[in-house]
Amino acid sequence: MADQKKMVEAVTSMDVDFAKWYTDIVVKAELADYSPVRGCIIFRPYGYAIWENIQKILDKKFKDTGHENVYMPMLIPESLLQKEKDHVEGFAPEVAWVTHGGSEQLTERLCVRPTSETLFCEHYANIVHSYRDLPKLYNQWCSVMRWEKTTRPFLRTSEFLWQEGHTLHETAEEAIAETERMLGVYADLCENHLAIPVLKGIKTDKEKFAGAESTYTIEAMMHDGKALQSGTSHYFGDGFAKAFDITFQGRDNTQQHPHQTSWGASTRLIGALIMTHGDNNGLVLPPDVAPVQIVIIPVAQHKEGVLEAAAGLRDKLSATYRVKLDDSDNSAGWKYAEYEMKGVPLRLELGPRDIAEGQCVLVRRDNRQKYFIKLDELETKIPEILKEYQAALFQKAYDNRATRTHSADNLDDLIRIAGESNCYIKAMWCGDVACEEALKDKAGVSSRCMPFEQETIADTCVCCGKPAKAMVVWGKAY
Amino acid sequence: MADQKKMVEAVTSMDVDFAKWYTDIVVKAELADYSPVRGCIIFRPYGYAIWENIQKILDKKFKDTGHENVYMPMLIPESLLQKEKDHVEGFAPEVAWVTHGGSEQLTERLCVRPTSETLFCEHYANIVHSYRDLPKLYNQWCSVMRWEKTTRPFLRTSEFLWQEGHTLHETAEEAIAETERMLGVYADLCENHLAIPVLKGIKTDKEKFAGAESTYTIEAMMHDGKALQSGTSHYFGDGFAKAFDITFQGRDNTQQHPHQTSWGASTRLIGALIMTHGDNNGLVLPPDVAPVQIVIIPVAQHKEGVLEAAAGLRDKLSATYRVKLDDSDNSAGWKYAEYEMKGVPLRLELGPRDIAEGQCVLVRRDNRQKYFIKLDELETKIPEILKEYQAALFQKAYDNRATRTHSADNLDDLIRIAGESNCYIKAMWCGDVACEEALKDKAGVSSRCMPFEQETIADTCVCCGKPAKAMVVWGKAY
Repeated sequence: MADQKKMVEAVTSMDVDFAKWYTDIVVKAELADYSPVRGCIIFRPYGYAIWENIQKILDKKFKDTGHENVYMPMLIPESLLQKEKDHVEGFAPEVAWVTHGGSEQLTERLCVRPTSETLFCEHYANIVHSYRDLPKLYNQWCSVMRWEKTTRPFLRTSEFLWQEGHTLHETAEEAIAETERMLGVYADLCENHLAIPVLKGIKTDKEKFAGAESTYTIEAMMHDGKALQSGTSHYFGDGFAKAFDITFQGRDNTQQHPHQTSWGASTRLIGALIMTHGDNNGLVLPPDVAPVQIVIIPVAQHKEGVLEAAAGLRDKLSATYRVKLDDSDNSAGWKYAEYEMKGVPLRLELGPRDIAEGQCVLVRRDNRQKYFIKLDELETKIPEILKEYQAALFQKAYDNRATRTHSADNLDDLIRIAGESNCYIKAMWCGDVACEEALKDKAGVSSRCMPFEQETIADTCVCCGKPAKAMVVWGKAY
Repeated sequence: MADQKKMVEAVTSMDVDFAKWYTDIVVKAELADYSPVRGCIIFRPYGYAIWENIQKILDKKFKDTGHENVYMPMLIPESLLQKEKDHVEGFAPEVAWVTHGGSEQLTERLCVRPTSETLFCEHYANIVHSYRDLPKLYNQWCSVMRWEKTTRPFLRTSEFLWQEGHTLHETAEEAIAETERMLGVYADLCENHLAIPVLKGIKTDKEKFAGAESTYTIEAMMHDGKALQSGTSHYFGDGFAKAFDITFQGRDNTQQHPHQTSWGASTRLIGALIMTHGDNNGLVLPPDVAPVQIVIIPVAQHKEGVLEAAAGLRDKLSATYRVKLDDSDNSAGWKYAEYEMKGVPLRLELGPRDIAEGQCVLVRRDNRQKYFIKLDELETKIPEILKEYQAALFQKAYDNRATRTHSADNLDDLIRIAGESNCYIKAMWCGDVACEEALKDKAGVSSRCMPFEQETIADTCVCCGKPAKAMVVWGKAY
C-alpha cells in the first residue's frame, strides 16, 4: 500500500485548497495537460473519452428531437460580426483576429468564431424563403475561441469544445418552446446521466447572452458551494433575423421575420463532473460517461488460472460495459489507487480463492462498499449496483446543495450568509441592475438565475426595499 | 414528370462540363453551400451526415487498432511551427495568422493549424520518458486551415475537416509497420465501404509531406480520369523527435529518439464519392455512408391504407437501415428525381395494388433496375440487393480505371497518351526530380505514386533514358 499512499498524498486535500485540488485531479487523472498556447489545454485520451461519451448522449437527444448537424466555417469576417449591435459589443473584446493569410495581409480581418450566430444567420438568409422551410433545427459540434484573461482547465479556457444549436421558427411561441425544450435536454443530461442536480431558470438582463432577448440556464452547485453555469439556451426574438434580413413568406402571404434560438453546452461539463463528485482520492465518474466502467484487478495473478478467469470475465462483461483488465505488474495497491484517481465506478477483484468459491468482489468507487457476488449472478447484480451508485452520486450532490441553500429577506442577513460560506441565497429582487451591482460589491455574489420555481421570500427587494419582481438565487460562481 | 425533367435539366451534363457538373451536384444535392469566408464552405446537413458516417467507420477502425482520440489547441505559436525546417518551409506560406487577441497585439503570432505535428511533438516530449510509455497511438478529429489560392468544395478548401493520427514508436520497424497499417485502413475504407478502388504506393520526394522521410498514399481515379489523393500516411523517422527533443530511456538504458508517423484523411473523400459514382441524375452513394439508405415513396397515397402500410414498413426497416418515408404532397416524379439527386441507394415504391398483392417495388439508384419483392421476403432480399449494388459501384469504378490505365516505354508515347485523355500512365523513372518536372512541362502529368505492386515496363527512365529505379504511375490530379 506504500505507493497508494504516495499517490494519494500527492493530491492536495480539497478541504485545504479546493482550487489546487482541482488542478491536481486534472493532471493526475490525465484528463488534460497544459499547452504552449496561452489559455489552451490539451485534451488527453482519458479526458477526451469523457467528452466523447457526453457527445454521444447529447447528439442522440438532439437527433431524437429532430435536429440536424452542420458545420460552418471557423472564421467570421469582421463586417459579419458587426451586423448585430449587442452581439458585437459582447464578443469583439474577446476574439482572436486573423489578419494575414500566408505572407499577404487580408483586406478584412477575420475572427476565430467565439460563437456562430452570425454565420448561421447569413446561411439562413440564403436558404429560408417560405414557412414551408421552417423550422430549421441545426446544431454544430466544434471548438470556439474567446481570448480569456485568466483561465482554468475545462472551466474557462481560450479555446473550448462545445456544441451550438441554432434554430429558426415561424412564430415566437415555437421559438420559446424550443428554447425551453433544449434547456430540458441539458437538465436531463446533467441530472439523469451526469448525476448533477441543476437549478433551471432565467438569467437577468445583466447576465444574459449578447444579443438575446432572454437566456435560460441550468446552474449546478460544485462541492465547494460555488455555482457553475452548465448549459444555456437563448431566445432571440427576431432581432438577429432583422439585422441579417432573414425573411419568409408566411401562411398569409406576407413577408415575415422568423424567430430564433441558440443553445450550447461545452467541455465545462467535465469541470462540473470533477467538482461535483470528486474526492481526495480523485475523480468519481457516473457510469454513463466513465471511459472505463469496470476495472478488473486480478489478485495473485501469477497463480494458475487467475488471468484466464479474469480475461474470461472481461470478455463476457465487455458485451455490455466498458471494461478494462489491468494485468500489469504493478501492485494491487498501486492499481487500486490508480483507478480510484480515474474515478472508475466499479472495481472487480478476482483471486484464486474467489475462483474456487465461484465469486468475485465488487468495490464501489464512491464509498468503497464491497459486494461479494457469485459469478453467475454478476450480470444481474452489476446493473443494480450501478443504479445504486448513480443514485448515491446524485443524492450526495443534492444534499450538498440543500445544505448550502439559504434564504435572506434583508441585506444584512444576505451579506452575513454570503460571508460565512459559498452557497445559494434565495432573495427577492426589484429588477434593477443597480441592485445586482450593489450585491456584487457588498456581498460578492452575482445573480445565478430567476428559477422557474419561484418562491416568495419577501415582498420587497433584498437590496433597495422597492417592490420585488422576482426571486433570484444569488451566489459565487466559476 | 414535368418537374423531374426540370430538375434533371438543371444539372450540367458531366460529359459537357465535368467541373460544372460537380459543383451543380454539390449545390443541388444540398451537400454544401458557399460561405462569406473566402475558400470556406458550409457543410449542410446532408453533406455533414455523409462525413459523420465516414467518421463512424474510421473511428471504429482506429479504436480497434488501439488508437486513442485526443484534442490539441487549434493555434500554433510561430516559434513552435519553426522547429522542424522542412515542415515550416512547406506550411508557412499557406497558414492563416492570428496577430491580435481582442484589442491587444500579441507578442508572438499564432497560426491556425494547417496540421498538428508540432503540437503533438511538444506534448510527446512532456509525456514520453521510457520505452514503457511507447507506443503512443493518438488521433484527433478537427478542422485545419490552409490558405489556398483556388478552391473547390470538398476537394480543396481553405478550411477542411479531417482526422490526423500521430504516433510514436520505439523502433523504425514498428513505425514503418504503423505507416503501412494505417494506409491499409484507408484503403479498406475506400474499397470496402466507399466502393472506390485505390492504388497504393509511395510518393516521390517531390510529392511527399513536408518533413516526412516517406509518404504513402492511396490514389483514387475519378470518373473523368483524373486522380484524387484520398489518404496519406507518413513515416518521419526520428527527424521531428530530434527537432523537438523527444527522448526515452530504451530497454538498454540508453537515451533514444522515438520514431514517428502521421496519417490523415479528410472531407475530400466526399468529393471522391461524388466524382467516382455520380451520374447526370445526381449523386450515387454507397450504402455504408448514405444518410438515407432506403426511401419509401407511397404511390396513390390518398388511397386508404397506403400511408399506414408505408409507415409500417418504415418502422420495420428502421431497425436495420436508415429509412425515410416521403409522404409529402410532391408528385411521385418529383420525389424520384429528388432522391436520385441525393443518391439514395434504394427506392421502395408501395401502392394499393402492391399492398393487395403483398409486395413492393425496389429500384436501385445506379441502374434503375426494378425488383418486385414479396413483403415477407424484404428482410432477406434487401441485403442481397444492397450487396449487388455495392459490388456494381465498385466494379464500374474499377472498369473505368482499367480502361483509363496505359503504359508507355518512351517519351513520345507518354506525351501522346496524356494528350488523348485523362488517364493513369505506367512508366519507368530514374529517380531524378528533373524528369518529374520535365514530364509536368511536356505532358502535363505528375507522379501519383510508385505503386507497391511494381511492374517492369522498360529498363530505362521514360524521360531521360538513364537506368530506371521504379515504375511510377503518372496522371493529372485534383
